[in-house]
Amino acid sequence: MKRNLAFVLVFLLFLFGSANHGLSQSQTAKPDASRPAQDEIRHLLSAQVEAWNRGDLAGFMAGYWNSPDLTFFSGGNVAQGWQAALERYQRNYQGTGKEMGHLEFQDLNVDLLGERAALVRGKWHLTLSDGKTPHGLFTLILKRFPEGWKIVHDHTSAAEEK
Amino acid sequence: MKRNLAFVLVFLLFLFGSANHGLSQSQTAKPDASRPAQDEIRHLLSAQVEAWNRGDLAGFMAGYWNSPDLTFFSGGNVAQGWQAALERYQRNYQGTGKEMGHLEFQDLNVDLLGERAALVRGKWHLTLSDGKTPHGLFTLILKRFPEGWKIVHDHTSAAEEK
Repeated sequence: MKRNLAFVLVFLLFLFGSANHGLSQSQTAKPDASRPAQDEIRHLLSAQVEAWNRGDLAGFMAGYWNSPDLTFFSGGNVAQGWQAALERYQRNYQGTGKEMGHLEFQDLNVDLLGERAALVRGKWHLTLSDGKTPHGLFTLILKRFPEGWKIVHDHTSAAEEK
Repeated sequence: MKRNLAFVLVFLLFLFGSANHGLSQSQTAKPDASRPAQDEIRHLLSAQVEAWNRGDLAGFMAGYWNSPDLTFFSGGNVAQGWQAALERYQRNYQGTGKEMGHLEFQDLNVDLLGERAALVRGKWHLTLSDGKTPHGLFTLILKRFPEGWKIVHDHTSAAEEK
């Protein structure tokens, strides 16, 4: 009987030990988990800016969710889906007499909304060869997919030209 | 010895039974949990539109997070904080020769980004007494607070007048 009680005790200690171990692992993992997400998102945005500034629109578009459900709002226009967003960029920045210019993102604020979603607020600033500097604001929503973070919604607006 | 084994078995069955019960509770609770959130957010937006259309700007502003951290993007302008957002509305819709007009929201899409955050995409359409109809798009980020869902970020843009 004593041996059986000892067995029960050892078994229970093992059970609770495993449970606590699992708990402390997930507890210590949480603060670390937000850091890589922030870093991954900032890295995605830096990669987009670098791609833009070498004229690589495909590289820039790699930051967006390649889906018909991607939405891109600018002014009063909705581009629905990745393909429509690409065509908008091609029309506005690669058409006749157009140029991509030099892009900068400023005042980036990355706000994790959970484990799988993030809000990014920031300013965009373009410098064109004729000296003009179109600029404005953007709001991005990113989601985490198995292949990494992707922009699922972009709302961009331009300041009025002075 | 047999009695001890029986005790262990009963105890283990009780343990696993509790665990499974807890699991199935949280599993069935999840689908139900998103429905009230969707409804609460749509109700908040309806209440905003109703408040606007009776000229109740304070009622409209009740949908926003009353915090210096609320952000409101429109065109190239940032209103930082609830007070600045209120003053922007007062300036644009209650100043001399201004009017609030009749507001409608269209094509609302509510996307829950987790248990405590949501993305809302939609169109706004204003009808003024002179027949003009300013309109455009908005992106809202809402967070769930103990007092309910509140808009923490608003990005609004207007279609160009034709």
